[in-house]
Amino acid sequence: MRVAEVGELSLLERIRDRFRVRSRDVIAGIGDDAAVIAPLDQNLLLTTDMMVEGVHFDLRFITPYQLGFKIVSVNVSDIYAMGGRPRFVLLDLGLDGETDDSFIDSFCAGMEEAMGRYGLILVGGDLSSSRHGKVVSATLIGYGKRPVMRSGASPGDRIYVTGALGDSACGLELLRTIERPIALESGEKLDKPLKWSIMRPLLFRHLLPEARNTRRFITAATAMIDISDGLFIDLSRLCEESGVGAKVYLGCLPISNQLKKAASALGFDPYRFATAGGEDYEILFTASPRKRVNAWCIGEITRAERTVVDLKNQVKPFSPEGYRHWH
Amino acid sequence: MRVAEVGELSLLERIRDRFRVRSRDVIAGIGDDAAVIAPLDQNLLLTTDMMVEGVHFDLRFITPYQLGFKIVSVNVSDIYAMGGRPRFVLLDLGLDGETDDSFIDSFCAGMEEAMGRYGLILVGGDLSSSRHGKVVSATLIGYGKRPVMRSGASPGDRIYVTGALGDSACGLELLRTIERPIALESGEKLDKPLKWSIMRPLLFRHLLPEARNTRRFITAATAMIDISDGLFIDLSRLCEESGVGAKVYLGCLPISNQLKKAASALGFDPYRFATAGGEDYEILFTASPRKRVNAWCIGEITRAERTVVDLKNQVKPFSPEGYRHWH
Repeated sequence: MRVAEVGELSLLERIRDRFRVRSRDVIAGIGDDAAVIAPLDQNLLLTTDMMVEGVHFDLRFITPYQLGFKIVSVNVSDIYAMGGRPRFVLLDLGLDGETDDSFIDSFCAGMEEAMGRYGLILVGGDLSSSRHGKVVSATLIGYGKRPVMRSGASPGDRIYVTGALGDSACGLELLRTIERPIALESGEKLDKPLKWSIMRPLLFRHLLPEARNTRRFITAATAMIDISDGLFIDLSRLCEESGVGAKVYLGCLPISNQLKKAASALGFDPYRFATAGGEDYEILFTASPRKRVNAWCIGEITRAERTVVDLKNQVKPFSPEGYRHWH
Repeated sequence: MRVAEVGELSLLERIRDRFRVRSRDVIAGIGDDAAVIAPLDQNLLLTTDMMVEGVHFDLRFITPYQLGFKIVSVNVSDIYAMGGRPRFVLLDLGLDGETDDSFIDSFCAGMEEAMGRYGLILVGGDLSSSRHGKVVSATLIGYGKRPVMRSGASPGDRIYVTGALGDSACGLELLRTIERPIALESGEKLDKPLKWSIMRPLLFRHLLPEARNTRRFITAATAMIDISDGLFIDLSRLCEESGVGAKVYLGCLPISNQLKKAASALGFDPYRFATAGGEDYEILFTASPRKRVNAWCIGEITRAERTVVDLKNQVKPFSPEGYRHWH
């Protein structure tokens, strides 16, 4: 049924029932002018991210479930990138009147799956009509005892990432070839244009990205940022805030076998996906070389110069390439 | 210059510089993966509101300054409606590439004016491109020692509102006649189609609404809600949550002289604006009849029936009329 037929009030009621929760730190959740929470006596972390149809997502390639999962994950990634523990979510959802109400149910199911994984509670939001296309915006509030900023890197620190880079961007490229959504969440498979064992992790990373918890190396990290717009652009941001440079060894980047095979089949350079692809949602962090850290070391912090050592051992400057709006 | 030419990074830089702040409760504001705040040891109130071009605002009628002011005020109104003190803002802004960068400057100036008035700090946000039309979403975090919910009204309580109803809706109707924005913030005036002294307060209430602080009656209030979608729909929400009814005396509604004159000139019923107009951003609250309260008493809470006593003293049921999405 179209949301225009179901009506705003009964949709709100449905969402409220779905996300009803009892928790000691929530005095009042969805349903009043504002939520009331009783936070722990700690610093709080606040972050927000918006996803606009036609810019951040294309419903020809992504299911509503995946969209719901993803809007939660990308915000959680920001909290993790501060070394924090995410807790409360607020959601703004703008939908055109032609939207089927099953869209909301699937979207909420995806959110719920992600929220369960990260231990989150939905405490408020705003449901609105939109004229053209859908828009989703989430705000996350988390706890951060000892926040790790972008600004703490020093020359000599090693640069680490938490996982393979470029998979998500390659997954998007695959979807453009496949030209339809794939309901990974329901176990759907597809063996074109490549073998499923190659496509699966790439599509998963793009459509259902899991945010990387930073707990295991948090005490070692001197600076952190999540890679959302691309390695080089986000590393540049960290350098900017820390007032330092960086030297990255291309040969040290973790590149998955699936990315290598798929990029080759699609006629793309896997290192392009890995350095400027965006939406990796891996964490980039720096740590003293004296600390032992369980992550991929990809380079080191320098005084000022930002360079990349390519596969032929040639040193070149890198520029902050990656996703930018209005370009 | 078009935002597409200015570029995302320098726009972010500009916004960050503008809203840079030093405050004991902000450890890190705009510019990292998440903001870090050190809140007072109190309950926190969380609320969010989204405004979509073509649905909540029409740039043929509203200036960017007014839009910036309004997105802050409407969220503050939700915090006040809980008896709270607003403090931190996060802002998501989606803009099409054709947007002039002066739009952002004016929008920020309006936000800044409102933020100063309410004592707010901008701690984060997300700047994004959009394909069709602009979208603004703000999240507010405030303190609430003793939150007043929608659910606390009891039969016998009096129903109060903090100010004249319907002015905003009539202001919007005037703008549809005028067919262009009016820069009230710069002292612009206009004597058509009605005298400025009549139009001014109506346009002000619609374009630059000030949220009503509830401090002066907070200890008396048993239930509160802000009137954003219309008196009858928001009163119905309060009744729903409290499990009560209400009896409203139409003759007791505060109706401004300007509304009476303008509605008559435009051929509208002023009571229609006042009961179903929306965007009043006055606070509706209930209090025991034994409490002396400095506000307009418009009726009383009943056991179950929701009725209105009209100007001819006839009692009729009222239905939750007002603004609804997808209708």
